[in-house]
This record gives sequence, C-alpha cells and structure tokens, in this order.
Amino acid sequence: MLDFFRPKQNQFFELFSRHAALTVEGAQLLEQLLSDLSSPLRLEEQAKQIKTIEGNADRVAHQTLDLLHRSFITPIERGDIHRLVSRIDDILDYIEAASQRLWLYEIREATPESKEMARVLVRSTQTVKQTVDSLNNIKDPSNIRTACIEINRLENECDTLLRLGTARLFKEERDPVMVIKWKEIYENLEDATDRCEDVANVIEGVVIENA
Amino acid sequence: MLDFFRPKQNQFFELFSRHAALTVEGAQLLEQLLSDLSSPLRLEEQAKQIKTIEGNADRVAHQTLDLLHRSFITPIERGDIHRLVSRIDDILDYIEAASQRLWLYEIREATPESKEMARVLVRSTQTVKQTVDSLNNIKDPSNIRTACIEINRLENECDTLLRLGTARLFKEERDPVMVIKWKEIYENLEDATDRCEDVANVIEGVVIENA
Amino acid sequence: MLDFFRPKQNQFFELFSRHAALTVEGAQLLEQLLSDLSSPLRLEEQAKQIKTIEGNADRVAHQTLDLLHRSFITPIERGDIHRLVSRIDDILDYIEAASQRLWLYEIREATPESKEMARVLVRSTQTVKQTVDSLNNIKDPSNIRTACIEINRLENECDTLLRLGTARLFKEERDPVMVIKWKEIYENLEDATDRCEDVANVIEGVVIENA
Repeated sequence: MLDFFRPKQNQFFELFSRHAALTVEGAQLLEQLLSDLSSPLRLEEQAKQIKTIEGNADRVAHQTLDLLHRSFITPIERGDIHRLVSRIDDILDYIEAASQRLWLYEIREATPESKEMARVLVRSTQTVKQTVDSLNNIKDPSNIRTACIEINRLENECDTLLRLGTARLFKEERDPVMVIKWKEIYENLEDATDRCEDVANVIEGVVIENA
Repeated sequence: MLDFFRPKQNQFFELFSRHAALTVEGAQLLEQLLSDLSSPLRLEEQAKQIKTIEGNADRVAHQTLDLLHRSFITPIERGDIHRLVSRIDDILDYIEAASQRLWLYEIREATPESKEMARVLVRSTQTVKQTVDSLNNIKDPSNIRTACIEINRLENECDTLLRLGTARLFKEERDPVMVIKWKEIYENLEDATDRCEDVANVIEGVVIENA
Repeated sequence: MLDFFRPKQNQFFELFSRHAALTVEGAQLLEQLLSDLSSPLRLEEQAKQIKTIEGNADRVAHQTLDLLHRSFITPIERGDIHRLVSRIDDILDYIEAASQRLWLYEIREATPESKEMARVLVRSTQTVKQTVDSLNNIKDPSNIRTACIEINRLENECDTLLRLGTARLFKEERDPVMVIKWKEIYENLEDATDRCEDVANVIEGVVIENA
C-alpha cells in the first residue's frame, strides 16, 4: 500500500483500540462497584461514571463510522468495521445495564458469584483489547486465534458462574423478587462476556477472510 | 442502469415499504390495545388482529425472497436484502409476542410505562418506515443517518422506560408472579425497538457499502 | 471445478454433516432425559452425556475452522462457513443449557409442554441435518427451501408451546420460584429451535448468493 494512505489506516486502528480500552475501563469500574455496595450514594456515583464511559464509547463509535463514510480505502472490509464497532459497543451496553440495575434495584450486598463474574469480565475485555490491537498485524494470525480461544474459555467460566449462582439463589434466597433481580444482573454480566466473544468472532472472521 | 431493469428494482423497494408499513400498523394497534385492557373479549380480538398483520408480513417477506430468487440483478446486495427482510420481520414478531402475552397472562390494567413504551415504539417503526423508503435514494445518505440516530435515541428512551418500569414493579408490586409477567412484556416491547435499531444498522451498513 | 480440489471440498461437507448429527443426538438425549426426571443420579448422568456431546461438537467446529484456515478454495464463501459453524454450535449450547438447568434446579417432574418442546426440537434438528446435507447440491435449491419452511413451522410450534406452558404456569403453579425455573428452561428450549432457524437462514442465504 502507498504510504500516502497510511495515516487514515492508522486512524482506524487507533479508534478501535480506544474503543476497546473504554470497555476495559468500564469493566474495571464495575468490578470496583461490586466490591462494596453498602453506600447508595457511592453506588449512584459509580453507576453514573460507567454511564459516562458508555457515552464516550458511543462518541468513539460515531467517529469511527464518520471516518468510514469519508474513506475510500479501509484497512479491513467496510462491513467488518461496522460490525466490529457495533459489537464492541454492545459490551459496554451490558456493563452499563448491570451497574444501573444494581443501583435501581437497590441491591446492598453483592453475591460472591457476581464479584467473580466481574473479575472474569475484566480479564475478557483485556483480552478483547489485545485482540483488537493485534488487528494491525493480521498476517500473523496465531496470536489472534490464541486470544479468541481464551475469550471463549472466559465466556464458559462466566456461564458456569451464572448457573451456579442462579442454582444457589433458588436454594437459599427466600424472597422471589430478590431471585428475579439477581437473575437479571447475572444475565447482564454473562451477556457482556458473550459480547466479548462476538467481538472475537468478528475478528476471527476478518482473519479468515484475509488468510 | 438500463431502464429495462427498473421495474424489478422498484418491486423490491415497494415490498420493503409495504413490509415496514405493516410494522407501523402493528405498533399502532398495540398502542391502542394497551390504552384499555379491561375487556378480555376485545383484548383477544385485538391480539388476533395483530397476529393477522404478522401473518401478512410473513407473506410479504416470502414474496421478497421469491423475487430475490428470480432476480439476477438486485438494487442492493443479495445478502443485505435477506438481512433486511429478516430484521423487519423480527420487529413484528416482538409486537405480536407482547400482545399475545397481555392476552394470555390475563393482564387487566396497563402500567404507565408500558403505554409510554408502545408510544415510543410507534414513533420508532414510523422512522424505520422513513428510512426504508429512503433506500430508494441512497446516494443522499444524510437523511438516512439522521433517521438512524433518531431510532437509536428512541431505543434508549424505551430502555430507560424498561428500567424505571421494572424498578417500580420491584418496589410496588406485591405479587411476584405479576412482576414476572410484566418484566417479560416490558422486555418484548424493548426487544421490538431493539429490532428497529437492527433494521437501522442494516440500512446504515448498506449506505456504507455503497458510499 | 478440478477433481484435484474435490477431496477438501468433501471434507467441509462431511464436517458440517457430523456437526449437525451431534445436534440431533443431543436433542434426542434431552427428549429422553425429560421423559423421566425422577432419579437425580440418572439425571446428572444424562446431563453429563449431553455436555460430552457439546464438547465433541466444539471439537468438530475447531476442525472445520482449522480446515478453513488451511484452504485456499472453499465450496461456499469463507464467511458463510464461519457463520454456519457458529450457528450450529449455538443449537447444542442451548440444548446443554436446558439439560444443566433441569439438573441444577433439581426439577423432579417434567411439564407436558417441555416434553412436547423437546419432541419438536428433535424434529427440527433432524430437518437442519437434512438441510446441511443438501448443501452438497445447492444447484437444486427447492429441497432446501422446503426444509427451511418446515424449520420455520417447527419454530412457531415451539413458540406456541412456550406461551401456553408459561400461561399455564402462571395459572396453576403456586411457587413463584418454580415459575422462574420453568420459564428459563422453556426459553432455553425455544432458543434451541430458534437457533435451528438461524442455521436455516444462513443456508437460505448461501442458496441466494449462489442462485
């Protein structure tokens, strides 16, 4: 490719990278929020911070799509850029959804499974970030495949936590409304790691197309 | 393009437009149904009407796919036509699902949030219809982008209503089974506006591919 | 196409077919499991068997993607192979999820609707298998369309069972936690037939692209 086109190519990768970094930040804040739910005020504050991060991510997504509209040549297929941006955005949507529900449903104590799920989610977003960063070098796809397998493993781990957490709720929680609340929060956490896997799938698809 | 091909090209756009019009009709009927749930007989009647509309939409979808199978040249990519038809169909599936549940679960009074969600959904399907109609003129993509942003905004509005409505249920509703029923109906309404956003995404993708 | 390439082409179709056969096997085991839930030990044993089948399916999926990475020429588009493998995998994920929940939530008696849903799911996976097997001969798409319509019909049948089953739970089940448990299992069963429809959609898309 002519060096003439380089700057714009790099802009795409920089935007992807910034987008993925925001999901890591959101996941880390969620982990922190779950470590102590005792103060309603702090909980509200932290939920708002995550909402702000989600808003920033929306802006990066729009910037990427704007760049796409203005570019004739793109480093990967136009449709894949669109899909990648949408899927990364979905991760933060579920992180934000989980944090809002913890606040709105006035949860005052986190279950051990929810804390563990947040930890897994942090690792998963970090691996997504790595994978997104590797897109710059898709001629060496072995790193990407290894990361995709790790993201898949983390998704399974989160799914197991969801199942065990839900089964324990059914056994130990006397208040059915609390069961409903936690079930939804668990599902949001699981959906977030699911969307990490979707990003990995898009990237795996890009690698396959460019093999 | 040769005028020779025009007639068939127009047929596609006409079918998309008719398909989108049926989703508006379904959403409007759902809004009307939610305005008064007191009569089980009328509720059943209105739920059946929505079912009929969904059946009509299925037929339009099949016609579009049949036309696709018989056409060598298509106005937009074959895969995008297939995706567009499937996503438009999904909107009505959720509208129909919500109406059936209101009837089957014997709900006799609508919550304010559900009425508001139906209003948002009507506006969202109307904007989807506009966007679908603009496909005829994708060389001017600015209208389409504006409409996509509006559909996204409406989806966020519906999501906020879902959250507030659910939080209120948890606080005020004493019967856990009623909580479960309404949570599902809210989710169907939210899924319907979500699918409106999916249609917007497909169309945004078409615009990007044809930029 | 040169005979030189045939062997690899056939390998793809053989892997698709083996993958689809595992979903049939999983669905049949789930139907069997639901026919008698009285023994916790046998239930655990059968849930583990389904888990093993899901693991085998994962391995077939990885083999297909490995073959894809090593192949320059593919019988259908690279992206479609990737999508097809992911969607077939999803079917077994939901079958496995349903069986795990029946075991983890300590369900001791199946509802008539759940048994009927499993029966529909078996027929649906069998039809998916037929469709996947027909991919070998996409120049005659009429069989494939007929099978896709049948898969769609079965999905609707399963959806009706989900609605009726849930409505009956709401009326007859006194324990709200039991309502929550069964609702989730019904949704897993319905999601499995939904994913059968997704596979049909991918294959319909392939037929459209190759028309």
